[in-house]
Amino acid sequence: MKLSEFAKITRSTIVSGPPDLEIIGVGSLETAREGEATFLASLKYAAKAASTQASAIILNEKDVIEREDLAILRAKDPYLAFARGLRAFHPEREAVAFRHASAVIDPTAIVDERTEMHAGVVIGAGCRIAAGVIIHPNTTVYAGSSIGESTVIHSNVSIRGNTEIGRNCILHNNVSIGADGFGFAKDEEKHWLKIPQTGRVVIEDDVEIGANSAVDRPAVGETRLKRGVKIDNLVQIGHACVIDEDALICAQTGLAGSSIVGKRVVLAGQVGVAGHLTIGDDVSVTGQSGVTKSIEPGRFVSGLPAIDNREWRRLSAAYHRLGDMVKTVRELEKRLAELQGPAGSSEADEARPK
Amino acid sequence: MKLSEFAKITRSTIVSGPPDLEIIGVGSLETAREGEATFLASLKYAAKAASTQASAIILNEKDVIEREDLAILRAKDPYLAFARGLRAFHPEREAVAFRHASAVIDPTAIVDERTEMHAGVVIGAGCRIAAGVIIHPNTTVYAGSSIGESTVIHSNVSIRGNTEIGRNCILHNNVSIGADGFGFAKDEEKHWLKIPQTGRVVIEDDVEIGANSAVDRPAVGETRLKRGVKIDNLVQIGHACVIDEDALICAQTGLAGSSIVGKRVVLAGQVGVAGHLTIGDDVSVTGQSGVTKSIEPGRFVSGLPAIDNREWRRLSAAYHRLGDMVKTVRELEKRLAELQGPAGSSEADEARPK
Amino acid sequence: MKLSEFAKITRSTIVSGPPDLEIIGVGSLETAREGEATFLASLKYAAKAASTQASAIILNEKDVIEREDLAILRAKDPYLAFARGLRAFHPEREAVAFRHASAVIDPTAIVDERTEMHAGVVIGAGCRIAAGVIIHPNTTVYAGSSIGESTVIHSNVSIRGNTEIGRNCILHNNVSIGADGFGFAKDEEKHWLKIPQTGRVVIEDDVEIGANSAVDRPAVGETRLKRGVKIDNLVQIGHACVIDEDALICAQTGLAGSSIVGKRVVLAGQVGVAGHLTIGDDVSVTGQSGVTKSIEPGRFVSGLPAIDNREWRRLSAAYHRLGDMVKTVRELEKRLAELQGPAGSSEADEARPK
Repeated sequence: MKLSEFAKITRSTIVSGPPDLEIIGVGSLETAREGEATFLASLKYAAKAASTQASAIILNEKDVIEREDLAILRAKDPYLAFARGLRAFHPEREAVAFRHASAVIDPTAIVDERTEMHAGVVIGAGCRIAAGVIIHPNTTVYAGSSIGESTVIHSNVSIRGNTEIGRNCILHNNVSIGADGFGFAKDEEKHWLKIPQTGRVVIEDDVEIGANSAVDRPAVGETRLKRGVKIDNLVQIGHACVIDEDALICAQTGLAGSSIVGKRVVLAGQVGVAGHLTIGDDVSVTGQSGVTKSIEPGRFVSGLPAIDNREWRRLSAAYHRLGDMVKTVRELEKRLAELQGPAGSSEADEARPK
Repeated sequence: MKLSEFAKITRSTIVSGPPDLEIIGVGSLETAREGEATFLASLKYAAKAASTQASAIILNEKDVIEREDLAILRAKDPYLAFARGLRAFHPEREAVAFRHASAVIDPTAIVDERTEMHAGVVIGAGCRIAAGVIIHPNTTVYAGSSIGESTVIHSNVSIRGNTEIGRNCILHNNVSIGADGFGFAKDEEKHWLKIPQTGRVVIEDDVEIGANSAVDRPAVGETRLKRGVKIDNLVQIGHACVIDEDALICAQTGLAGSSIVGKRVVLAGQVGVAGHLTIGDDVSVTGQSGVTKSIEPGRFVSGLPAIDNREWRRLSAAYHRLGDMVKTVRELEKRLAELQGPAGSSEADEARPK
Repeated sequence: MKLSEFAKITRSTIVSGPPDLEIIGVGSLETAREGEATFLASLKYAAKAASTQASAIILNEKDVIEREDLAILRAKDPYLAFARGLRAFHPEREAVAFRHASAVIDPTAIVDERTEMHAGVVIGAGCRIAAGVIIHPNTTVYAGSSIGESTVIHSNVSIRGNTEIGRNCILHNNVSIGADGFGFAKDEEKHWLKIPQTGRVVIEDDVEIGANSAVDRPAVGETRLKRGVKIDNLVQIGHACVIDEDALICAQTGLAGSSIVGKRVVLAGQVGVAGHLTIGDDVSVTGQSGVTKSIEPGRFVSGLPAIDNREWRRLSAAYHRLGDMVKTVRELEKRLAELQGPAGSSEADEARPK
């Protein structure tokens, strides 16, 4: 690919370098080799830019680096441009018509011919699998589920009955979709009585779910992941949650039941969200926080319980000076006692002859 | 089902509505449609009760709602009554005699005829599988394990050797039972020497284990989940733990090795429990807490380290006023300095002429 | 095994007891029966030592117990000696040449004859599987991966393409190796654009990975687990992390992308590590901590953000006296107000006639 074409694909502009320079791939500042393009997200990494082996680099609209041996491109968001460049060199593979002899497909399932059904795949009764779907080995789809066009399901995934999955989704390995929500009522003998989980999970288009994550079905109604939701590894989505469009949930975060997560919300790693809450659009929650109350749109929160991030940092700073404060308060006590004299109380003090 | 029968099944009493009203199902306040019954757990949800489409509603013994178009029932615990109603409409499916051609069952395994062995199931040597057991596709049971009557094992589960599972259990997808506990000794060269994990896991009757959870085997002896234990998704039960009857462990909670969890203990989500502790009966631990010491029966604890919940809330409230306290202490310092005058010490102060 | 041989294998010395005493196994203080050997790690467990049924016990070089009916051995580290004893009685099983009829092995894969390929195993194109490897049922290995000598892969594991796994590794059930790292760029419409994860995972020799853990591949370059790394259950290793030799990572800990973990680092359970950090050799992080900055070698850290453990304990102690401090400060305010008189300011005070 010529540099000029690379610039077009990455929506960047060439500042220096020959437009017909051959770009053969894309890499990070450390991994890119001669002929490859790289990017500089921030001047924090300027030292790495100084030594990169890449032949071209995408900068943002302001940064300057001291390299005249490299073609220089500029983009508003170099990371986004890098993503586009990498995608151009690594297009997603299209499904070929393939059904391994060991795949077990129920005769009542409707499976498009242009799908890949790998070894050990099991498709239950009444399922509908659209064109372009790839299902990797040893994955199990229970009866009554549907999977939309060009979705990729990796190996050893389990999709329970009546699940609906949209188009262009990716489910990574060992994911569990539609297992029973965790619902029990305590009976008169203090034993737990299971509440049947009769609802279903709906996953809309363009959703990605990381390895070993679990999305539960509810007792009644739906658990829903809307268009463009991205979920990392080992995440727990409890029964009856609704995750709105383009929300991003990082690894090991867990949501109890019935919470609503707004559009473009970002939950960092190991966050916990209690049940029956509403997290407004564009909220961002920092790692290991515990959300115990609903959050207004646009807020940036931290801590357990999660509060405004600025307030949390202020409290955290105060906390880290707590040792000093203990000393100060002891000092104050001492000085005050000295002021008040040996009897140690202001009443006594006033009674003393002056 | 007539309303009178529904009342009987849910152990509730009819306050208003015709006993022969036809009840066709059960739903939540939002999802229930005409002909269905619903329940009101708390007046918090009174607004939803005002607009529910349900034809009957179960209230507790006190609450009042302004709906005369609904049949009204009363139960001590409407949620429990709802659970019973839902169970009546969604009875658990019985196993049929079924062995898929691709199931691989060792000839030395004793598998009751009235079991379902789905596609890709692998049963090792010497296993015993009782009547009524359903094993979903692509699940692996290693040699020497036994599974009791009417237990359901979902797809892609792994059960390691010599595991004993009781009756009426449910194991959800991608669960790992009996993998090696995390035990290593540091040798003279500071490398980790693996301690063989030669013990086994015992799961008693009526236990449910959520998707992608792991229960480890110990070096010697047993890891044991007693009758009625309920475990959510992505939970870690370390080697040699004993979880007593009716304990309930929420998602992403983890127990290190050799801890004992008492009867009816509730561990909320993302709790951590250190090794070699005893958590007494009826203890409740709030979400994201870290239990670092044994806990007396009946306690309600929170925080890292977990302490009495009331004390934790008091400290947390104080923490959230830490910014104000910093100000107050600074103010006190200033006022005291003024009182003591320019020399800034009470000794100097006393030396000053009055 | 004679006691004399047992002493040799466990690198301990006999203090009392006949050298030709028959040792038939090894157990804990509670589980060991007559004829078995046990160990005492610490005098904390002296009460259990007093009642153990074992016929021999390994003590450290100082401890004394009141039992004359037992053979007594001494070792520098009794736990390490116990590990060696248990290993002697439970040697690792060697692979036999076995290929189940239902294993699906791509004709281009090179699989050594002396390997076990169990039922439902799927090996992709171009894979290389060395002698002594055991792959348990329903495990999937994508194309282009290699597995070194005597490595054991348990059931329902997924290994994505181009992964390299060394010798003598153990991967427990439902592990996911090489799933896509969690990398997205936000586009102009605020949708997430997937960054292709084109790198690979390399796992060196003697690595053990616990059940349901996930190790992601990066966009470019490698994620690498070096020799002797031990990883517990439900752990998340993000894309492009490098975990150095003999590091030990406990259950439910998660690392975001591109962090470097030093040699012999110990991360306790439920720890979170942010992206792009360097944790120096021999660092130890206590449970539930959040590492937000790089850490110098040899440090022992705790808390969120993780700080020096001693400082963290000091702050934690101060925190737990926060209620008392609030009272003290209020008291100080009151006393100061009294000292300053009704006008409540030192200026007013000075203006008052004396």
